[in-house]
Amino acid sequence: MKNDRILLAHGGGGQLGNELIEKYFLPLLGNPILNKLNDQGIFEVNSTKLAFTTDSYVITPIFFPGGNIGELAVYGTVNDLSMGGARPLYLSLGLIIEEGFPMEDLKKIIHSIKRAALESEVKIITGDTKVVNKGGVDGIYINTAGIGIVQVDQNISADNVRVGDRVIVSGYLGDHGIAIMSEREGLIFNNPIQSDSAPLNKLVCTMLQTKVKIHAMRDPTRGGLASSLNEFAKKSKVGIVIEEEKLPIRGEVKEACEILGIDPLYVANEGKLVAVVERVRADDLLQAIKGNSLGKMAGIIGEATDSHRGKVIMKTKIGTTKVVDMAVGEQLPRIC
Amino acid sequence: MKNDRILLAHGGGGQLGNELIEKYFLPLLGNPILNKLNDQGIFEVNSTKLAFTTDSYVITPIFFPGGNIGELAVYGTVNDLSMGGARPLYLSLGLIIEEGFPMEDLKKIIHSIKRAALESEVKIITGDTKVVNKGGVDGIYINTAGIGIVQVDQNISADNVRVGDRVIVSGYLGDHGIAIMSEREGLIFNNPIQSDSAPLNKLVCTMLQTKVKIHAMRDPTRGGLASSLNEFAKKSKVGIVIEEEKLPIRGEVKEACEILGIDPLYVANEGKLVAVVERVRADDLLQAIKGNSLGKMAGIIGEATDSHRGKVIMKTKIGTTKVVDMAVGEQLPRIC
Repeated sequence: MKNDRILLAHGGGGQLGNELIEKYFLPLLGNPILNKLNDQGIFEVNSTKLAFTTDSYVITPIFFPGGNIGELAVYGTVNDLSMGGARPLYLSLGLIIEEGFPMEDLKKIIHSIKRAALESEVKIITGDTKVVNKGGVDGIYINTAGIGIVQVDQNISADNVRVGDRVIVSGYLGDHGIAIMSEREGLIFNNPIQSDSAPLNKLVCTMLQTKVKIHAMRDPTRGGLASSLNEFAKKSKVGIVIEEEKLPIRGEVKEACEILGIDPLYVANEGKLVAVVERVRADDLLQAIKGNSLGKMAGIIGEATDSHRGKVIMKTKIGTTKVVDMAVGEQLPRIC
Repeated sequence: MKNDRILLAHGGGGQLGNELIEKYFLPLLGNPILNKLNDQGIFEVNSTKLAFTTDSYVITPIFFPGGNIGELAVYGTVNDLSMGGARPLYLSLGLIIEEGFPMEDLKKIIHSIKRAALESEVKIITGDTKVVNKGGVDGIYINTAGIGIVQVDQNISADNVRVGDRVIVSGYLGDHGIAIMSEREGLIFNNPIQSDSAPLNKLVCTMLQTKVKIHAMRDPTRGGLASSLNEFAKKSKVGIVIEEEKLPIRGEVKEACEILGIDPLYVANEGKLVAVVERVRADDLLQAIKGNSLGKMAGIIGEATDSHRGKVIMKTKIGTTKVVDMAVGEQLPRIC
């Protein structure tokens, strides 16, 4: 019996997770907002457009180089709102804590949530704490949901990419996933890799001010850049062609990927975005992104094409092309 | 070292949970909305008043007499919005599932979520699924957050009870908690007790239409009626006096409470509300509640007083009075 039980891969950003959504969730729970499968649902109340999103964080270890589960839970939800062109306003905070969890660690996490909320200019206005018996949860899990106000009259959606659009990434790929994996595997580098965990709302605000048309945008977390681009290609029915030599990846991350046998295109990021934007003004937008401290290493890495519709193709450094598939499962479980 | 680790009781609706909130959460995360500690945060965007709430559901067993974790997660959040006088509109759905969880059970839960959302007239517009390794979670936990629109210009808040107000409960107390406990303990009754899990939004809508002033309202879940009333008494700085003989409690629930050695005042409900309302029109409101199928057994059980400020007092059937304290912890862990 194939798939009569939930597998770790069902929770990844890849194909099995999508199957779960498309076979079980959408047929029962679907509606025009949910069906878009964007990182946020956008709705209108009294002519005000709002965005709503949620994520649970089950990362292990909960403290890692460059951050911890608390700030990740704030930034992740701030970023999911930002990816819809919304300004994040309010967050909810749901904690599930294991009996016996050290109070000192909880304090550190709450401090970190406070700092992250201040930095992102969001307020936590509702919350819930559950404590479960030992073994009922691995330390602490955090759910945040968030509400933001959509301030632009743009349709930023995975199904809105057009042929000719340029693909921009805002900086180095793979830092978060590799920081976590290195920690788990006990890899030691001269310059330890830090998570890129950061709030993207101010960067997005800068981008929106340029008035350059952004057609689709994601923060490529679980499943990495490959999964975000595959979603765009599938939903928008365009091809996406990227160039390997234009991908911004740190040398240390490349090395670690080789040691660990994983592909940086599938590694989670927590402070990066990928935007697919109108061709004619893509360079203007790139300059604006580079002017933000989180966007210094941004670059145009490819474009949407009429050929290869529904697929992502990479031109390699050695001049060949290869298909960049949607990940099947998740290379790195519990990465966020 | 007292309390250097999280205890099960920190997750209850009682005193230790409140300490956690007041000592660790509010000093760091506090703001005028969160500080009210209502079941929902209420905010305004472009002159529209919205309510926002969240809850995680970690109930065991996940299937129980009268319901399952799926509908509970929908109704619970619908009810938390309703308690602020809001009409629930949209829900988020965050699943944390254990590797190996049976797909059939997941399907049942999703079906149940669908039915509950239809019944409550809410749409799920955003979601997230995490799968964790075996032992990382006990089966499945669900977080829902919800957004509603506040349609009345009433201040329904735990700190708004006034001396003279009447206390109304909408029906039988303790059904949910006792259904769960009986299931866990293998108690067998002639008429098995069912959870009262139900959406209260339509009942609240009926109540608001009467225009009777509701000063405070809660669905007494974790910690039961005793905890809700204690919160009202403390935040509003009034006494609350209730009469034991007026409390609607099923015979079977009383029996089970005696066998299990627990007090029905502290037992969780999932389809009941307690409202503290203006004295002069309390009877009008009671009649309206009784006209709703979920309110048939409603009754006025007490009032807010000038004496015993900050405390809840019960006049017993034998003519004595006793203090009804806030629960210290939780009699029934993982009841929701």
